[in-house]
Amino acid sequence: MHDIAAAVGMSRGTVSRVLNGGYVSAEARAAIEAAMTDLGYVPNNAARALKMRRSQAVAFVAHEPHSLFLDDPNIGSIMLGANAALSLADHQMVSLVVESARDNERVARYLSGGFVDGAIVVSARTNDPIIKVISDLALPAAFIGHPPDLAQHIPFVGIDNVGSAVAITEHLVSTGRRRIGMIAAALDRDSGIDRLNGFRDALGPLFDEELIADVPHYDYGSGVKGMRDLLEREPGIDGVFAASDAIAAGALEALREAGRSVPGDVGLVGFDDSTWAVRCQPQLTTVHQPAKELGSCAAQVVLRQLSGETVETTRQLLPTPLVLRDSA
Amino acid sequence: MHDIAAAVGMSRGTVSRVLNGGYVSAEARAAIEAAMTDLGYVPNNAARALKMRRSQAVAFVAHEPHSLFLDDPNIGSIMLGANAALSLADHQMVSLVVESARDNERVARYLSGGFVDGAIVVSARTNDPIIKVISDLALPAAFIGHPPDLAQHIPFVGIDNVGSAVAITEHLVSTGRRRIGMIAAALDRDSGIDRLNGFRDALGPLFDEELIADVPHYDYGSGVKGMRDLLEREPGIDGVFAASDAIAAGALEALREAGRSVPGDVGLVGFDDSTWAVRCQPQLTTVHQPAKELGSCAAQVVLRQLSGETVETTRQLLPTPLVLRDSA
Repeated sequence: MHDIAAAVGMSRGTVSRVLNGGYVSAEARAAIEAAMTDLGYVPNNAARALKMRRSQAVAFVAHEPHSLFLDDPNIGSIMLGANAALSLADHQMVSLVVESARDNERVARYLSGGFVDGAIVVSARTNDPIIKVISDLALPAAFIGHPPDLAQHIPFVGIDNVGSAVAITEHLVSTGRRRIGMIAAALDRDSGIDRLNGFRDALGPLFDEELIADVPHYDYGSGVKGMRDLLEREPGIDGVFAASDAIAAGALEALREAGRSVPGDVGLVGFDDSTWAVRCQPQLTTVHQPAKELGSCAAQVVLRQLSGETVETTRQLLPTPLVLRDSA
Repeated sequence: MHDIAAAVGMSRGTVSRVLNGGYVSAEARAAIEAAMTDLGYVPNNAARALKMRRSQAVAFVAHEPHSLFLDDPNIGSIMLGANAALSLADHQMVSLVVESARDNERVARYLSGGFVDGAIVVSARTNDPIIKVISDLALPAAFIGHPPDLAQHIPFVGIDNVGSAVAITEHLVSTGRRRIGMIAAALDRDSGIDRLNGFRDALGPLFDEELIADVPHYDYGSGVKGMRDLLEREPGIDGVFAASDAIAAGALEALREAGRSVPGDVGLVGFDDSTWAVRCQPQLTTVHQPAKELGSCAAQVVLRQLSGETVETTRQLLPTPLVLRDSA
């Protein structure tokens, strides 16, 4: 910094303001930037982060097992939505994959280490250690989705899973289905539990505990398995709510195996409106999940905290319209 | 550090060795770690990174447009393979998405800023600015795939795209196909160009320039479009090499629309052996790409450089067996 100041004949304070974002005249800035280029100056960001307590980086923590990360196009869309918003604000998104308990501990250490200014967390579980880490550090953060034990003061963005599940289930009922089952997934998370609750609420007296297949993940393989179970338990099943489009695609495969037509014999609906929905034959009637918007909204919530704003609305639910196609 | 040393009655040097990984007796380590917990000590990694010049983090740079990141299951598998290997060695993988020119510049700044010790780069293009950045910084790195202008001294891991394309094309010929086309993708990258070259080499006199559909990405939508083009140009086409399984899945859709059976009327082969291959009806004959191994191999190449080893083998090609299923 001393060399640059000497080269342009200005004070170190002026050079520092160029580096750290204070007010400098356009001429001074141009001269200093030219000198930085001439002298081959590269800012050491680890040093600046230490000094400024800012890294200009925001973590994106994707807490997903292997299969889901690959099979669920939502995660990718959420990530790209967050990246676009952070990129516009000149922040680097660093995405951290949590696959094992070992990853979990290391990510916690990383978040505490001053490498990032904030964090976006997708699909945290109940009792997720990441919640405690973020709360203890008071790290500016936004969750996507809402684990039931999330501290009140941590903002989140999400969708109304209960209401969306009610709406899509009511659609199935309105098409005349009476023996309606659900392939319920991810019951260790708010999204999974809420979709099941909405389904139960909407069916009322038509609800039958026997027609719930409980599968671990929102993926294709779980859909195949869940549908086979349901067909075995109730060959007369005539409607199915799959907790995701990938699950619905798997269910469609199992129905085809069993010689059942969709929507002729069985009405089938999904959740997400991902690329799965339009690739299926027939295309899926489903709930549109605004994945990209969830990512960008969460990023903005973090950026607003970083800019010193008090984030009043800690709870933001984005709309989820039904998309009616051919499967029900 | 002073407080911890005082609390346990040991020297600051001993405390420092616990923090920075030198030799310490098991008893001393236990006492110091207990004191760190009692005193609420959290290491500031940005400070340590500055001092040690080590962040224990390795970047994973995924250079992909939106659609590919979502549609190509290879990227996810490569990333998880890299994460598993880095995690075992207690390094944090930070994944950086490059979607725009703006992202590219910022990622370059991030890599130069001392936040990571090394980088794994997937699917770099010809003239990719990231190559110059890594070369100028002498950052320990491994590329997955091989842009033609990659500096000699930068290690890469990959597959033999030419040889693999020759093998799968020869398989098509061996099944009696004579009017064989290719849906070629990503011709701005070594993988795309090499697959096209292998196809041309294998066909020899059967090769017909008219039967090449050139599409931008390795994705489903490109497959639908490419296959429609080929059918329009040559209704008598009886064999197709799709440059990826996702493209083959799209091609299958376009063939179904046009009333052509697979493999009856048209033999169809893909590339990757991803989840697409087994989800198609019929399942795809394809080339197995060892995606997870590519990720873990690249991570090991970076870790070896970080441990001070000279990496002699800068070029590593992993095997790609043919997988014969029902589509050809």
